[in-house]
Formats: sequence, structure tokens, C-alpha cells
Amino acid sequence: MNGADALIETLVANEVTACFANPGTSEMQFVAALDRQPAMRPVLCLFEGVATGAADGYGRIADKPACTLLHLGPGYGNGLANLHNARRAFTPIVNVVGDHATYHRQYDAPLNSDIDTLVRPNSIWQRSADTPDSVAQIAAEAVAASFGPPGGPVSLILPADSAWLPTTTKPVKAQRPVRPAPDAAAVDDVAKALKAAAKPVILLGGQACRAEALVQAARLAAAGLRVMTDTFVARQPRGAGVFQPGRMQYFGEMALADLEGVDLMVLVGTTTPVAFFAYPERPSVLVPEGCETRTLADRASDAVAALRALADVLGAPASGPTQPLKLPEAAPTGPLTPQSAGQSVARHLPEGAIICDDSVTSGGGVAVPCMTARPHDVLALTGGAIGIGVPLAVGAAVAAPDRKVVSLNGDGAAMYTVQALWSLARENLDVTVVVFANHSYRILNIEMGRTGSGNPGPSASKLLDLGDPRIDWVSMAKGMGVAAVRCETAEAFDAAFARAMAEPGPHFIEAAI
Amino acid sequence: MNGADALIETLVANEVTACFANPGTSEMQFVAALDRQPAMRPVLCLFEGVATGAADGYGRIADKPACTLLHLGPGYGNGLANLHNARRAFTPIVNVVGDHATYHRQYDAPLNSDIDTLVRPNSIWQRSADTPDSVAQIAAEAVAASFGPPGGPVSLILPADSAWLPTTTKPVKAQRPVRPAPDAAAVDDVAKALKAAAKPVILLGGQACRAEALVQAARLAAAGLRVMTDTFVARQPRGAGVFQPGRMQYFGEMALADLEGVDLMVLVGTTTPVAFFAYPERPSVLVPEGCETRTLADRASDAVAALRALADVLGAPASGPTQPLKLPEAAPTGPLTPQSAGQSVARHLPEGAIICDDSVTSGGGVAVPCMTARPHDVLALTGGAIGIGVPLAVGAAVAAPDRKVVSLNGDGAAMYTVQALWSLARENLDVTVVVFANHSYRILNIEMGRTGSGNPGPSASKLLDLGDPRIDWVSMAKGMGVAAVRCETAEAFDAAFARAMAEPGPHFIEAAI
Repeated sequence: MNGADALIETLVANEVTACFANPGTSEMQFVAALDRQPAMRPVLCLFEGVATGAADGYGRIADKPACTLLHLGPGYGNGLANLHNARRAFTPIVNVVGDHATYHRQYDAPLNSDIDTLVRPNSIWQRSADTPDSVAQIAAEAVAASFGPPGGPVSLILPADSAWLPTTTKPVKAQRPVRPAPDAAAVDDVAKALKAAAKPVILLGGQACRAEALVQAARLAAAGLRVMTDTFVARQPRGAGVFQPGRMQYFGEMALADLEGVDLMVLVGTTTPVAFFAYPERPSVLVPEGCETRTLADRASDAVAALRALADVLGAPASGPTQPLKLPEAAPTGPLTPQSAGQSVARHLPEGAIICDDSVTSGGGVAVPCMTARPHDVLALTGGAIGIGVPLAVGAAVAAPDRKVVSLNGDGAAMYTVQALWSLARENLDVTVVVFANHSYRILNIEMGRTGSGNPGPSASKLLDLGDPRIDWVSMAKGMGVAAVRCETAEAFDAAFARAMAEPGPHFIEAAI
Repeated sequence: MNGADALIETLVANEVTACFANPGTSEMQFVAALDRQPAMRPVLCLFEGVATGAADGYGRIADKPACTLLHLGPGYGNGLANLHNARRAFTPIVNVVGDHATYHRQYDAPLNSDIDTLVRPNSIWQRSADTPDSVAQIAAEAVAASFGPPGGPVSLILPADSAWLPTTTKPVKAQRPVRPAPDAAAVDDVAKALKAAAKPVILLGGQACRAEALVQAARLAAAGLRVMTDTFVARQPRGAGVFQPGRMQYFGEMALADLEGVDLMVLVGTTTPVAFFAYPERPSVLVPEGCETRTLADRASDAVAALRALADVLGAPASGPTQPLKLPEAAPTGPLTPQSAGQSVARHLPEGAIICDDSVTSGGGVAVPCMTARPHDVLALTGGAIGIGVPLAVGAAVAAPDRKVVSLNGDGAAMYTVQALWSLARENLDVTVVVFANHSYRILNIEMGRTGSGNPGPSASKLLDLGDPRIDWVSMAKGMGVAAVRCETAEAFDAAFARAMAEPGPHFIEAAI
């Protein structure tokens, strides 16, 4: 047994059993050790951004971390953008970052870099295991730290010699931290403020948007309170039988118009809402002037307990409103649009499905009809770094092999981590990928006007347009082993999506909108 | 005029005229300003790793920086691995990293991150331009800093308000630093040591491997000295009429066997050679025991002047050996191998071509016959982060539109930044991409044995094998608009490569080896 075995044994002892990997020479001992512990499932990703996005999807669904295996600083760098998203989703992930042998670092070999600094901005915990005997203990700390609360990616740096040298250490069990419940006085205070307010709103984020919490939040809605969620939520149930709060608008001025007159904002599992971007002469903070904000539960607290306590104190009904099951009556016809595609998704989505959403400007068309579809979970892009939609689906499907996974993507976004399609085929995952091909960074055409930059001329247009050449998505997907079809009408999309929902395994649909 | 204009005007005033970009909302002012300064050529890359690798290729060929345009921390992260390579190539690059407006940073919006920390490990200079009036001055500093010497990537962080606010500043000219020549006494010392040594070797790296320097190094060879280069060199001429030094072996024990008995190593434009990776019981430093090392010129010095001075002091002949033109006599036949492909490359490569090499285990087969091919330049992978071959070619072709560019890639490597193919088509670049498809991380099969990890079992094999499913490279390339062909025999490859060399524009060849 060597340090790599000690690491894998401790991870498995703590129920970390999926490894999204793109290894190199310095990780060969970890790779070899996988053969000695079959409880750890290795999933090869052909780019590290796929591995980290998959670990995020896995963590959101499994509520426990997967590990990644990344090749020194550059391998971590390739996975960095999706770790940024995971940090914003508060998803537990244990990144295992291979490094040179401890004694080799001083020579600054070509692949050497300052890993300690690189990992800092997107790690809620980090440590290098510089001896084989320290690996098990540090691995247990890593798992515990990844849970937070509120949780996030951690980085365990594993020098090659710590992996290859012998050790006799036993696996170490990690303590899973408990989220604290709010004290009664704080709940009473919020209840009083709510009663006193003329136009209060309750804003949910993170854990307050999960299934159990929404049951309690619905009680508040039944008591007459307005309940909303953050714009982008890591995981939220949707559809029939689920309480559907409103959503904070994306653009600041729309959000503030929506909140006009609100004099109290109660935060549950989130923080004060702010605009995604700043624009000249537009607001940064999305709280109306004169509106008070109160935190019922911060991100680390037990949001379910907090919402239940508040509903009880307020004497809210035992249950609140939920969505009816209301599927579109007929298949959509005519030109294919995000709206018509949304009708098809709503019609055919099976109960328990998981939607991984990186669809940018096409997303709204799907969200609306799905609010009364069969109940499902939605994983959104929390950190704004596009290129997460297919990676998230890889991880979600590994975490929940019995659930149908649907990945919705803008074409610009899907290109970022297009290599993820290969992993779908390799693992034969039950994932249907939809790419909305508008051959444009459509959002940037909108944003260009909003930033006061004027209309795009010849140079600017070249940076917003993806249409020359047009990407043939069917060729790309088939090239990576995924059955693929291009749909140009609502009818064709409806048929293709229905087929994909009926057949297990990976499917790819290019939606030509 | 706003801060974005000030930036672009200063860049153009300093001959920074190519921008490899993947912008987002916070960069819209920069994008709009491009329309007002047509001297800056924008090249859209569908992933930031393409943009940074292209800037590296551009800088190595143009000997001046291109700029990149990257979207906050995650955009920089996506480009990080190829910036690691560029740092190891000492390539001047000006990264423009967009950021939130200065006053918006405090709110920690979803795309906010600690950019200052993120860029540090791979920036030789970094600064945020926090007012519009500071942009021009800071941009000039950035350009100057990128030249070093020895040069490297710099990071100019551009908050959105610094870009959109007005300014009346004029473009600022940057001073291009001069590389110091070694003093006469130091040269004399090295000359004396060389005369006293029983078995000396001269090791060239960086600038000492460029054309002018090799002319001087050849004189040393003519004087009976053994001359070698680093294993991986950023840019080196090769072929007929060029001096071809030996090369430091990749594996440490082979390097030391090759250097057995060497008692003096003179370093020119490089540092003490070290093993790429550490292995159990294998050496880290590739200098034989008892061998003295002396630096004639460090990486920042004028290597040409240093080599010339040394050759003069030693009374070396006025010129030294160069390679003959010796092309393979006949087209190769039979099974396609890296060796037979190398014969075809050597046969058809036109004078002045640029080879961008990310071919990992397939590279040796091409290098040997190309040593007597028509003269060309080779850009190698300097930092070990695979996924640079096609991006480098994008940049090299933009820098030298009159030269044929050939990109050689392992299939594992090519997948990392496969989006680069689209930019070849978009810009109609004269680049021929060869992917050696062995459907495996072949190097890792070799490394696994070397690290003492044993033979791969079922789990380990899953992480080394790319063959299930087999990537259809022709579909992938065609899907991104590049004419593509798959070759399974030496004859087919020879014909396809000849055709690609005869026709301008992008070509793709899958070499099924």
C-alpha cells in the first residue's frame, strides 16, 4: 500500500466513489491504485473542464463530493472555470491535483507552477499532502471541508512521491458538518418585521430552493407572503406538485421595477441580490431604496428549519400552493423556436428527470412550460462561466443512473466543453443533449446595446457571430460517438425529443432556431 | 474616446495589431472600440485556450506580442494552460482581462473572482487599470513588460468602467528593452574553462536556438565542441542550410547516459537541465556527477552576441556545419506510421514552413527526416500542457500569412483545444493540421511503467485509452468547416499531405497510425 492507495481508501471510506479524471504522468500512481479499489468509478474526461463540471453535477445530485484527478497546475487551470461555477453553487468537490515529487519541485521543471496560488481563488480549503503518511488524514479533512457548510470545491495537492511511497495508515473517517438552525429569537424578529412591513418579499437561494425547503416556503406563500428565488439556483425542483416561487429578474432595472415598493427583503440561504454586471447609470444592488434586508438564514444555516420555524411562528397553513400537472395539449408545429422546443420538452420530460441548463438566451422558452411539467430538477449556471451544460449532465447521470438527464445548451456555450460528448458515449450515460444553434453569441448582441457600446460594426460583429462557418453539430456529436439529429421544425424536434426520452443512452439534438 | 479606445490606440501605436478574443459583457466596450481602429485584427476563438495558444504562436513568429481579450477570471482560467506554456516559451503576450466595473467588484457578483491572484503564477507583470486616464500608460507598461527580457505573458486587468468612461489621453509609446551582451571577462572565463575541460558540452536554449544564434553555435561545433539544445525549444530553425545541434534526451537516465563523462556544461540562454518528471530512484538534475556548469548567457542576455564572442575568442572558423538538403527519394509505402508520415512531411514541406508540434509520442518520426528537409521553423511544446498544437498554428498563420503552417498533434492533445479548428476555417488560414490517431494517451502507457505503477488493470486502462468510442476526426473537422481526410496507408498520407502543401487554406488529415 502506498500514498495513492491511502488516498483512495479514505475517499471510498467517506463515500467518495466517483472520480472524473484526466491524469498525466504525475498521477499514474493514483491511476494504478484505482485497480486495487473497484468501489471508485473512474470516468475519463478528454478535457479537465469536463471533469470539474461533471464533479459539480455529481455533487449537486448526490449531495456528496466526487473527486477529480487533475494534472498539475495546467490541468487544474483547464478545470478552473467550472470550479468557479461550482464555488458559486456551493457544491462539494474534492479536487486531487497531482504535483511533482516534493524534492523535484525546487528544480522548476517545465510543468512546475505555483499550484498553491492557482487553486486559492476557487478552493474553500486547500492543502498539499507532502508525506505518504499524511495522505489519509488530509484526505479526510478535504472531504469534511468540502461540505462547508455551505460547501464548495477543495484542493488536495498530491505530490508524486507522496503517492508512490509506502504507508501503513488506515482510512480516516470524515465528520460531515451539521448546518446550524436559527435561534427562536431571530425567527421571532423576522416574523415581527414581516408583520410590520407594507410590502415584504422573501428571497430564497441555495439550500432554501431545495425540495424540503420549498415545502416550507410554500406555507409562507399560503400565508400571503411573496416568495422569490435568486436568478440562478444550483438545484431546484420544478413542475407538478412543486411550489414555484417567482424569480429575481436578470437585468437590474427589471429586477428593481419588479420589486418596486418592497420595504423588507428577508434573505434565506442567500445574500443581498446584486446585478450580474454593472452598466453605465444602472444599479448594482437589487434592493429598492429604503428597503430593509434581514437574514433569516445565511448560506451555512439550515434553511429548512428556518423556513419551518418562520411559517410556524407566523401561523401559516400546514401546506402551500404547488404547481398543477398541465402538459401542452398538442405537439407544437411550425418553425422551431426556444418556445416550441420548450413545449416539446414539457410534453415528453419524464418524472424525475434532471435538466442541466446552460442555454443562455434560449432558456426562458423552456422554463415557462416546464413549470407545469412532470416534476423534475433543474441545475442552473451559477457562476456565469458558460460551458457547463454537458459536463454537468455527465456528472448528474453518473450520480443518478436511474434518472433521465437533459442538457440544454446555447451553441456558443456548448463549444466550450464540447469534449464532454465523448464521455457520454464512453459511459453510455442516459443523457439527451440539446444545442440551440442560433450561430451567435446572442446574449452579447443584447449586452452590447446595454453597455452603451453602440451597434456592432465589422470588427465587433466578427466577435459576436458564430455563423461563418456554421458549426455542423450533428457531425461533431457523431464524431464523438453520440447519435445525433438536426431539427429545423417544431414537429421534427418534438419527434426527436420524444424518441430520446423513450430510449436510454446518449442522444444529441441540434435545434436549428 | 473612452478607456477602451485609449487601450487599443496604445496597443496599435506599439505594433500590437492582433487580438485573439473570446469576449463577454464586461468586454463590450473593447469590442466596440475595435470598430474605430481597423489596424487591430480581431480573431474570434471559441474557447480561451485557443486564444492564448494562438497569441503564443503569434508572438514566437512575430517577435512582438499579440493581445488576448478574456472574460474575467473564468475566461482567463480557460486560457491558463496555454499561458503556462507561453511563460515557459518566454513569449511576449498582452492579456487583456476584462473585469467588473471598479465600484461593482465589492458586491461579489456571480462572475467576480480574485483575478489578481489567478493571473499571478503565469504573468511576468500584472496591473489593473482602475481609471480611464491610466489605461494608456498602463498599456504601454504592459507591452514593455511583455518583452522582458526574456519576455512572457503579462496581464492588464481592465474594469468595465475604465473602458466605458471618457478620457483624452494620447497613446503612449513603450520602450522595447535591449538584451545585455556578456562582458568580455565572462566570455574569456568560459573559453578558458572549455579549453581546460576534457569533455565539455554547450547547451543552448531559448534565444540561443534562433537562426542567428545557431550560425554562431555552428562555429563552435566547427571548433570541435559538442553543442546541444534543450529538449523543448520555443522556436528553432531546422532543415537544409541550418546547423542542427543534438538534443537533450527527454528521459533523465537516457540524458545522463548521453552525457556520460561530460565535465563541463556551458549554458547559453537556458538554465541547468532537469528531468521533466521525477521517478522513483531516478535523477532530477540532468548534469553528470562532478560536471561543472557555467552560464555564458542567461535567458535575458543577448545569446547571439555571447556565442559570437565565444567563437571569436576560441578562434573558431567563420562558419560551421549546416544540414544538407536531402529529401526522401521515394514516397513511402505500406502501413502508415509516424515514421512514414515523417517521410511525407519531409518530402513536401515547402521552404519557410512553420511546424507547430504537439505530437507527443508521434513526434520523433517526423523530426528525423525533417532535419534535411527544406528549411523551416519548429515551435515546440515548452510547458508540457498538451493542447497547444492547433492554437499555436492559428497564431503563427496570422503572424506569417505568407508561410505554410503545419500543425502536428497527438489525438489526445488535439482534443484539448479542438475548437481551434473553427478559427482556421473562419480566418481561412493556411494551416494543415495532422492528428496522429492512436486512440490512446500512449505516453501515459509508457510513463505508467516508468513510475513503477505496474501494468494497467481495468480501471487504469479506462483512463489511458481513447478508443471507445473511436473519435471520428474527419467528422469533427468537417463539423467545424475544415476540409478533412482520413489516411490509413503511407501512400494515402503522402498524397493528402502533398495536396495540402499545394493548396492554400486550412486542411485536416487524420493519420490513422
